[in-house]
Amino acid sequence: MLAVHIERGRVNVRDVRRPQRPKGFASIRLLSGGICNTDLELLHGYYGFSGVPGHEFVGEVVGADDSRLVGRRVVGEINLACGKCDWCSKGLGRHCPRRSVLGIVRHAGAFREILTLPESNLHVVPESVPTEAAVFVEPLAAACEILDQAAIADGAVVAVLGDGKLGLLIAQVLNASSKTVHLYGRHKNKLRIAERAGVETIVAGKTIPVSRYEWVVEATGSQNGLEQAVRMVRPRGTIFLKSTVHGKVRIDTAPVVVNEITLIGSRCGRFEPALELLKSGKVNVLEMISERMKLAEARRAFEVAGRRGVLKVLLEAS
Amino acid sequence: MLAVHIERGRVNVRDVRRPQRPKGFASIRLLSGGICNTDLELLHGYYGFSGVPGHEFVGEVVGADDSRLVGRRVVGEINLACGKCDWCSKGLGRHCPRRSVLGIVRHAGAFREILTLPESNLHVVPESVPTEAAVFVEPLAAACEILDQAAIADGAVVAVLGDGKLGLLIAQVLNASSKTVHLYGRHKNKLRIAERAGVETIVAGKTIPVSRYEWVVEATGSQNGLEQAVRMVRPRGTIFLKSTVHGKVRIDTAPVVVNEITLIGSRCGRFEPALELLKSGKVNVLEMISERMKLAEARRAFEVAGRRGVLKVLLEAS
Repeated sequence: MLAVHIERGRVNVRDVRRPQRPKGFASIRLLSGGICNTDLELLHGYYGFSGVPGHEFVGEVVGADDSRLVGRRVVGEINLACGKCDWCSKGLGRHCPRRSVLGIVRHAGAFREILTLPESNLHVVPESVPTEAAVFVEPLAAACEILDQAAIADGAVVAVLGDGKLGLLIAQVLNASSKTVHLYGRHKNKLRIAERAGVETIVAGKTIPVSRYEWVVEATGSQNGLEQAVRMVRPRGTIFLKSTVHGKVRIDTAPVVVNEITLIGSRCGRFEPALELLKSGKVNVLEMISERMKLAEARRAFEVAGRRGVLKVLLEAS
Repeated sequence: MLAVHIERGRVNVRDVRRPQRPKGFASIRLLSGGICNTDLELLHGYYGFSGVPGHEFVGEVVGADDSRLVGRRVVGEINLACGKCDWCSKGLGRHCPRRSVLGIVRHAGAFREILTLPESNLHVVPESVPTEAAVFVEPLAAACEILDQAAIADGAVVAVLGDGKLGLLIAQVLNASSKTVHLYGRHKNKLRIAERAGVETIVAGKTIPVSRYEWVVEATGSQNGLEQAVRMVRPRGTIFLKSTVHGKVRIDTAPVVVNEITLIGSRCGRFEPALELLKSGKVNVLEMISERMKLAEARRAFEVAGRRGVLKVLLEAS
């Protein structure tokens, strides 16, 4: 079977043996996978990664201990937790210190014809949700995580910085959850996707509002996004940090202290609210698909995904 | 009357006119003032400051609209708020955007024989609290602010980084409030002050515990304190940022995001709990006094306060 392999900046598609299915795991035939910015960073040496990438996927179960799963269309939580530690017992396997992570840490990823994941990680995709929408569940769950981390009142104004894939999803999630979103970005064509979902957008120029927002989400993916967020937030306000920037960020921490700002790091989220949102049709993910390519074309797909202005590139198995 | 004046790294003591007392303000005769690290930073150009510094003080009211104040020993909140804006109406004049700040922003400080402050900023010092203890109210209130910002369970283990003045106060405040404190510092003589108040102390070496604490307070005053705190805190844990470091800090924000860490900037606090703590005798502040000098000796007092290993230097009026 085919599997994408990345190592030191090179993408190769290899013919490999079908993986064994350990006890408690399902074998899943890939239907569609999404290339994420993290995959591009893995390609460029983030985490010293080499192997099969891919953690955004929809697949069909072809083998499982639980026979009811076989033949079902599923998405899968990416953290493979130990199931025994304190974190796992609190339902926070996403922070299990012994976890492996699909396509990121010690577990081969989804960009292969057949992948494996623990059955407990799987969620059946509701019939009304198309495969190409369900492939956004993982980043959408990461966007939903913000709502699990803080009680933002309905109607509250939230500034979202960044009109990349994650920024667009966050803006839409918050909008669907009755917040008033101001999405700041540099690309009119990207901002328009959020606009059509009812989000107010602002083309970010040289002047940004100072001390204006009680809530700011930093999703620029850029080194100076945090400093911009600190300028925009009000005293006692909250900034969600969503960008994992490679390398060190230079920041003046004095205004964080003087204005008693709260910064909350925010990563993966629960899949349940994300699937509910897709079912509700309140978020517009299909417009975020820039290209669809075959697994065999993975090298070109990674190259396209890295181009300026490109949003989601999907990899399909056959 | 005498007043300390700082400008571009120079400390001068000048003979100046006694200040007018505006309506609603009290005239206060200085009994004792404390030199804070912020005063040293103001001296070195932080905030582009020039003028009379000093915001930690105890004085005796010599003139006031409210005659009951006259003759009383008082301490004073340092933020002079407008009293009319949204922040002020929420009782958060400490964040009033139009505020001036005693000895820091547009209001001459306490290092002069007679100072002025709004009567509403004053708190009468309980008789049982000596003047030299009461002079610690302002930094002690800043230490207490942590308890106003987050609900830390009794018995919870909190790491405090830094054995400077603020670190010692924070460690003692948390200890007095039934937390289990681990104070990390580099100076055995300073750590001993907290030890005598019942705090567990650790001489910080090259190896620091990783992902160990749910709560960490960064009070090192150094550029790499934040990065150290990020290493020490557990996933989903909280770091209080107390150090206002001059210049930019370089930090890897990825672990903040991946481990969903919360950072809370923390500055001034309410005086009431600080006065209560001083009354209770549960914090040991008198041992933190390194030197007592006269206002006329301010130049030398600033020089001594800046020396390594020196804790609080007090300035007395006569």
